[in-house]
Amino acid sequence: MSESKGLHLYTAGTPNGHKVSIYLEELKAAYGIDYTFQSISFQKLEQKEPWFLEINPNGRIPALVDHNRGGFKVFESAAILLYLAEHYDKERKFTFDPVSDDYSEALQWIFFAHGGVGPMQGQAGHFIHFAPEKIPYGIKRYQDETKRLYSVLDTRLAGREWLAGPGKGKYSIADINVWPWVKSYTLIGLETLDEFPNLSAWVERIKARPSVQEGLDVPTPAPKTKEETEARLAAAKAWMNAPQGKN
Amino acid sequence: MSESKGLHLYTAGTPNGHKVSIYLEELKAAYGIDYTFQSISFQKLEQKEPWFLEINPNGRIPALVDHNRGGFKVFESAAILLYLAEHYDKERKFTFDPVSDDYSEALQWIFFAHGGVGPMQGQAGHFIHFAPEKIPYGIKRYQDETKRLYSVLDTRLAGREWLAGPGKGKYSIADINVWPWVKSYTLIGLETLDEFPNLSAWVERIKARPSVQEGLDVPTPAPKTKEETEARLAAAKAWMNAPQGKN
Repeated sequence: MSESKGLHLYTAGTPNGHKVSIYLEELKAAYGIDYTFQSISFQKLEQKEPWFLEINPNGRIPALVDHNRGGFKVFESAAILLYLAEHYDKERKFTFDPVSDDYSEALQWIFFAHGGVGPMQGQAGHFIHFAPEKIPYGIKRYQDETKRLYSVLDTRLAGREWLAGPGKGKYSIADINVWPWVKSYTLIGLETLDEFPNLSAWVERIKARPSVQEGLDVPTPAPKTKEETEARLAAAKAWMNAPQGKN
Repeated sequence: MSESKGLHLYTAGTPNGHKVSIYLEELKAAYGIDYTFQSISFQKLEQKEPWFLEINPNGRIPALVDHNRGGFKVFESAAILLYLAEHYDKERKFTFDPVSDDYSEALQWIFFAHGGVGPMQGQAGHFIHFAPEKIPYGIKRYQDETKRLYSVLDTRLAGREWLAGPGKGKYSIADINVWPWVKSYTLIGLETLDEFPNLSAWVERIKARPSVQEGLDVPTPAPKTKEETEARLAAAKAWMNAPQGKN
């Protein structure tokens, strides 16, 4: 876990963190590109410490420092994906030519996720699991909106395998950018994705990739059972409701 | 307002709409690029009509159709800015070389706004103005988060004029992408931006640009007084609380 050379990722086991570790694992498998990572502890509010704010002024994970390129710093999960695509995905295995319409299409779905699925599902999770008072209006508002956004993805995936690219599409950063959110649907109270069959098939298609499984084990092994997931959620709740315990 | 050639914008007088009309006005002033636009009526739920969902499957404004390039469709405000930068800002007057670190820096601030300021300020506005019940927890949560995000921008702008670019920075799509939100601070209950002096100066710096003022008058003239702003808000409230009246 050296910080002095190569790509170094600051992360935690959240959907936004997993976007980046999954892409890094795909790049490792495809090109042999290596990276190091370190876990940022929300309990200790490490993400708000001055040394970390030098890397990400917003005080959130993930953040990347590229010691191959003079220690260049990148924050915001989707900006990190685009940075890695530009500098490390030379054969564009998981991205598109930046002047192509396919690239714009990928960006459209990336922004759709970054401004929609991520923040809205995040708010659903907050009102369901973390808010110190039970507020039915907040729970319903964000559950409904997240389901509406899932339905947009489901419609997009009708007759397609992937979100962006010609024909049935190409597995790309547009998929990687939103998959860690959608696969966490149980956290917003959905038992299955049965009402979104195309989206459900897409979730399984991506889950089957070995690099995706590797990425989910960064920075710590993913919970493997429902009990482990619940135990981790309970631990998060315990500190989330402390006055400053926000990411 | 022909739809058959050139750039055609579907929009409304909201921060996300104004991002795009402001950039289009800057491109018009800088390069003579013309565009047409049409207003999408939320009251009539036009954004959810099948013809519009063909353009933006998410059913929201803004959306762009480029008849110069075979009717290519672009949705998500920030994806539209990046598309226009790629195809219409040939001298990169308001953008950066896509392989440069400056470009990545711009993207980082664009995603910061698209996943943070936009959705969080949007939720603050919802709980303050549109929610059918008064929920103090929701109001405080999103007001506080929006102010925290403003403070991140304020810190970034210390000693800088613009969000991205070398030295004091360059006025760019990174600024255009977030300005229409920040300049609307009164809608989330702030009377002034005095606690964010760098941000306040930046708001005024951008407001002084003639193209910005032109962009704010698309698709309809911006309210010029506090009374006009309040009247427009009251009209929006009237239909927003109807069962399906959501954008």
